[in-house]
Amino acid sequence: MENESIESYITMPKGFKAAGIACGLKGNGSLDLNILESDIPATVAGVYTSNIVKGHSLQRTIDVISKGNPVRAVIVNARNANACVGRCGYEDAELIAGSAAGSIGCKSDEILTASTGVIGIRLPAELVISGIPSLVSSMSSEPEDAHNAERAMMTTDTMPKEVSATITLADGKEVTIAGMAKGSGMICPNLATMIGLFTTDCAIDRDFLSKCLSKAVSHTFNRVSVDGDTSVCDMVLVLANGASGASITAGIEDADLFEEALTSLSLDLAKMIASDGEGASKFIEVEVTGAASEADAKLIVSAVAKSPLCKTAIFGEDANWGRILTALGYSGAKFDPNKVDCYLCGLEVCRDGAAADYSEDEAAELMKAHDINISLVLHEGEYSDRMFTCDFTYDYVKINGSYRS
Amino acid sequence: MENESIESYITMPKGFKAAGIACGLKGNGSLDLNILESDIPATVAGVYTSNIVKGHSLQRTIDVISKGNPVRAVIVNARNANACVGRCGYEDAELIAGSAAGSIGCKSDEILTASTGVIGIRLPAELVISGIPSLVSSMSSEPEDAHNAERAMMTTDTMPKEVSATITLADGKEVTIAGMAKGSGMICPNLATMIGLFTTDCAIDRDFLSKCLSKAVSHTFNRVSVDGDTSVCDMVLVLANGASGASITAGIEDADLFEEALTSLSLDLAKMIASDGEGASKFIEVEVTGAASEADAKLIVSAVAKSPLCKTAIFGEDANWGRILTALGYSGAKFDPNKVDCYLCGLEVCRDGAAADYSEDEAAELMKAHDINISLVLHEGEYSDRMFTCDFTYDYVKINGSYRS
Repeated sequence: MENESIESYITMPKGFKAAGIACGLKGNGSLDLNILESDIPATVAGVYTSNIVKGHSLQRTIDVISKGNPVRAVIVNARNANACVGRCGYEDAELIAGSAAGSIGCKSDEILTASTGVIGIRLPAELVISGIPSLVSSMSSEPEDAHNAERAMMTTDTMPKEVSATITLADGKEVTIAGMAKGSGMICPNLATMIGLFTTDCAIDRDFLSKCLSKAVSHTFNRVSVDGDTSVCDMVLVLANGASGASITAGIEDADLFEEALTSLSLDLAKMIASDGEGASKFIEVEVTGAASEADAKLIVSAVAKSPLCKTAIFGEDANWGRILTALGYSGAKFDPNKVDCYLCGLEVCRDGAAADYSEDEAAELMKAHDINISLVLHEGEYSDRMFTCDFTYDYVKINGSYRS
Repeated sequence: MENESIESYITMPKGFKAAGIACGLKGNGSLDLNILESDIPATVAGVYTSNIVKGHSLQRTIDVISKGNPVRAVIVNARNANACVGRCGYEDAELIAGSAAGSIGCKSDEILTASTGVIGIRLPAELVISGIPSLVSSMSSEPEDAHNAERAMMTTDTMPKEVSATITLADGKEVTIAGMAKGSGMICPNLATMIGLFTTDCAIDRDFLSKCLSKAVSHTFNRVSVDGDTSVCDMVLVLANGASGASITAGIEDADLFEEALTSLSLDLAKMIASDGEGASKFIEVEVTGAASEADAKLIVSAVAKSPLCKTAIFGEDANWGRILTALGYSGAKFDPNKVDCYLCGLEVCRDGAAADYSEDEAAELMKAHDINISLVLHEGEYSDRMFTCDFTYDYVKINGSYRS
């Protein structure tokens, strides 16, 4: 697998087009509406928010995908989540899909819809619909239009998140996979105010594609927490159109290659999302090994990654491992507190549940880094897990104290 | 029951003395060590943190109380939690108790110990022990010494928290109950970096006293969340010494009166703690009615009270009920999102899961209040619950980004 670290964009796989325009939702000419289109119908798989309150655009996408048919395009608007507005929200999503289908020349059920932004205020669907003709006519495979598509779905994100990889199959054929994501706050497993889109020009059957996506998401997108709040609008989709002439089915060696590549790209995007958490000044990776069960391992990393006290301490560059042990203690996981070891950026600060013999000066120096690693060893069993988050800063409060108005 | 709203202090019940001094833990002459003493052995009951990591002073108190004997005094130090330091932590607590017992002239097992402050750094027990003679010699029943005792256990608290009530029993005898608490951050049900002490001059048998305290704590102290972090050192104790000559046993009318008074004082202290949450600018009460089960009701109020997005919105005086519905959706409670009503300070902002017909101007005006009420109606069943919290502010981040160093 080759990572295209220089420039990635969602239309790198063959047969995809994209565009991003300003339809007036954000005002002042900012991009706020995008489309991702496949020239030929593409197999699709999706994973969705676990929140039982679901946005209307998302709910419509779930319904469409559940029918099992190939799709042509995904249309995403920012600024308004199209959630919690009553029946008209679903109808608005239908109108938008119908309008896009008309411009592209396909069926309404070949269009998926996604929305991100403020909850509880009706989406001005007429703005979206009036923008669709120019959105569709400006679609291309060019990097610039793909980057515009990414920027058009960003809300409080401060940087675009685009990745790609190329894999060579056993028969020598090349397959490209690309991904883009948005997400910055209201982010917590499982999924969040987060939208991830993947494309590939390989032909893949629907069941295997779904399985690959679920697996790719489980320890990547579902291990990101910015603030512990799981949003109502979130989804990760993958579109496979077969335009490269290559195909993959479950069980062959190529299948593993594809699955690994999709997981690796998901991990890259997940880390970018944590790093770009609202107001974040630091990226934090929380790891645990030696847990007694898979569930315990997840409880441990989740409690630490969500603890406001741990996250403010890291913002303050304070090696305050006592707060980390406190989070372990209320996590709900079973372990012996007197056997816990804790490492901060590789430095052992706690051994057998008590302060290790370390230099506070050295710890303070290590805490100045942008990337902070918290590593916990429980000595209870064989299970491990990790989660990605960011610190809790003044700017998080500022961004979220004034986001809606 | 009569609330002494003008001035309350922990030694109002007969036969109690208190003192607070500076033993040097905080430095610069700040009060950091207190004692609360009963002239005669008092029946005691306690409830403790649910964190499986437990501070050493706390663990010793649990062990002493579990023996079932009456006690003479509680000694509390601030600045250092005496937690996660290994075996020496328990030994230090024993040394402190032994020293206090020597000064008072009682057995070591009649002294309870509590510590609050930084985790993972050994408590300089020699400072505490060197302060004990002057601590014990300065004990009195005077309000000033009682207030000093409260101030000596405050950490990031900005205001003292003292309450009292007098009840008249069926036989005409008067009983006084007083309470004091500390707690500001790392606060979450069940208990937190929170210490609550109650005294009463009534004679009460141990089992009934324990039952009263557990009941009083369950929907008061255990319904306060500042930041979702449950600390390792927390306890609420009640000492009943019988010095008034009055006594209460379970089953009689007086018993209900006492239980109600203790619950009411616990509620007052719990609200003071939420109001004085680290960096708080607002007090928030989250209520739910119509939940399908007791567990669901608790999940609902807990999710809202802990959501950083809800708490920053209230800091920003933004009537952002969409974030409240989002928190409900991921709370784990079962309910139909299309039947939820939400009121902010009495104004219906959401009906049947969608925006109600309300004025944003009116909502904005209501959100300027210091006390914010969030009321949710699920229309699923008969269960209700409520929780107390505060908003999430710049100052929370500031306080916790620099607390340890």
